[in-house]
Amino acid sequence: MKIDSGTFAYRRRAAFADTDAMGVVHHVNYLRYFEEARVAWLREMGIAGLHFPKSDMVLAVLESRCLHFLPVRFEDEVLVYLQARGERLKIHMQYVIVFASEPGKIIAKGMTTLVPVNSSLKPIRQPPALTKLLETSKWTETWL
Amino acid sequence: MKIDSGTFAYRRRAAFADTDAMGVVHHVNYLRYFEEARVAWLREMGIAGLHFPKSDMVLAVLESRCLHFLPVRFEDEVLVYLQARGERLKIHMQYVIVFASEPGKIIAKGMTTLVPVNSSLKPIRQPPALTKLLETSKWTETWL
Amino acid sequence: MKIDSGTFAYRRRAAFADTDAMGVVHHVNYLRYFEEARVAWLREMGIAGLHFPKSDMVLAVLESRCLHFLPVRFEDEVLVYLQARGERLKIHMQYVIVFASEPGKIIAKGMTTLVPVNSSLKPIRQPPALTKLLETSKWTETWL
Amino acid sequence: MKIDSGTFAYRRRAAFADTDAMGVVHHVNYLRYFEEARVAWLREMGIAGLHFPKSDMVLAVLESRCLHFLPVRFEDEVLVYLQARGERLKIHMQYVIVFASEPGKIIAKGMTTLVPVNSSLKPIRQPPALTKLLETSKWTETWL
Repeated sequence: MKIDSGTFAYRRRAAFADTDAMGVVHHVNYLRYFEEARVAWLREMGIAGLHFPKSDMVLAVLESRCLHFLPVRFEDEVLVYLQARGERLKIHMQYVIVFASEPGKIIAKGMTTLVPVNSSLKPIRQPPALTKLLETSKWTETWL
Repeated sequence: MKIDSGTFAYRRRAAFADTDAMGVVHHVNYLRYFEEARVAWLREMGIAGLHFPKSDMVLAVLESRCLHFLPVRFEDEVLVYLQARGERLKIHMQYVIVFASEPGKIIAKGMTTLVPVNSSLKPIRQPPALTKLLETSKWTETWL
Repeated sequence: MKIDSGTFAYRRRAAFADTDAMGVVHHVNYLRYFEEARVAWLREMGIAGLHFPKSDMVLAVLESRCLHFLPVRFEDEVLVYLQARGERLKIHMQYVIVFASEPGKIIAKGMTTLVPVNSSLKPIRQPPALTKLLETSKWTETWL
Repeated sequence: MKIDSGTFAYRRRAAFADTDAMGVVHHVNYLRYFEEARVAWLREMGIAGLHFPKSDMVLAVLESRCLHFLPVRFEDEVLVYLQARGERLKIHMQYVIVFASEPGKIIAKGMTTLVPVNSSLKPIRQPPALTKLLETSKWTETWL
């Protein structure tokens, strides 16, 4: 699998609190890493201002999926690559997690389907700046 | 959707720590509820003794998926219905979460694919008692 | 240390997701167990209706403390004993966690200081039913 | 309260998953931030190699305490200041959390008492490099 240079990547270390009794990061934390990556992506794309808490919009998770290939241990540094595309109201994001020190080693892949909602959890219209960003974002069908 | 009477159900309340700033249970916690449900299922089926910490076997998560339909709030009581089936080394489990007070209202559906590993994370043979249990477990193709 | 019979106790099992790479429940989860215990206590005392989400009051944590004596492992069943007392606006709660199977073995002790706030996080008056309950609650100075 | 320039500071943003139904970071996560800060400190001090997973030593938490002054919201950036001192086998650490954008505003203060243990959770001798570091570390009695 090849990740295009220029793909957005979020970097973080595995915390001790993220591990479980098998000595590896507990599987639910990958969804937290995905969330952190998409928040960092919104910030990097300059549209964090469209999202809670700065605006009354949250990207609610309709569906999530994660496939695990290699374990991550305490203090391992990982990169979470992210791609996004729109599909009417929905936003699809896909993620590939690799070791920062060995980016060819895939730890996990995943996807989330999101929908913009307000703080009453009612679906709302996608902000135009987000729609525009999604239209020009690169999406690789073969990531997952 | 109809859940057969006799389907295993794990009951728990949403904790305050499980909620997020939208006032609802944060999506990653559904994977924790699925995990709690399968641990309770192993116990109920009388085979918790085959699993860590009583034996050197853990059901490692290869894949997980969750679809969200309704939000859960602090103190809501939910039922997590669970079905399991074997596929060679792999074990598939599927889950439906409903409100305990309104079992017709589906909160979330999900699945996990698991594989037995030892504490060094090496895949191991399925214990015969688990295989046997999986062979006789009911599986409904239309749950997800 | 002696726990009076009649002391409120909350029972729960340690979840796999609660453990860390040392094979034991990660220390932050004790604060979650304390929270679950005090929510269960409010329910048992018949005053859960005074608290969020049924009323616009939350017991916000001003201070928490935990002392660790013995590790807890996956699937261990524990009891969280709880006592509460009022001090003007503040509510003090103290906790002792023991093994359900060996109640003489103390796992952890802790305390939290709480204050009633509304959903805007403004301190509010203690509901009279809560004050009255606190006045008649038993408190043992020597627990911690 | 004055934090000396030169005090070690760990910077992080509050994640969405860290918030609760009051719209603020849930209190248990402050203990996770403390842990992340001390791991970052060990790294910064050049002695992460003495600790798990690189060596068979973990700093186990004997006691923790946290005092809360101001709420933190999603996307707030905070600094966790840390000081450490030794007391025979024990290591005391104290923490002050402030807003990165307004370092005069104190969010929380806390302390943890730690003891070096091996992976069997047996107390072990403090590595000399750690002892030496603790002897020369600055400690301000008035932080808490």
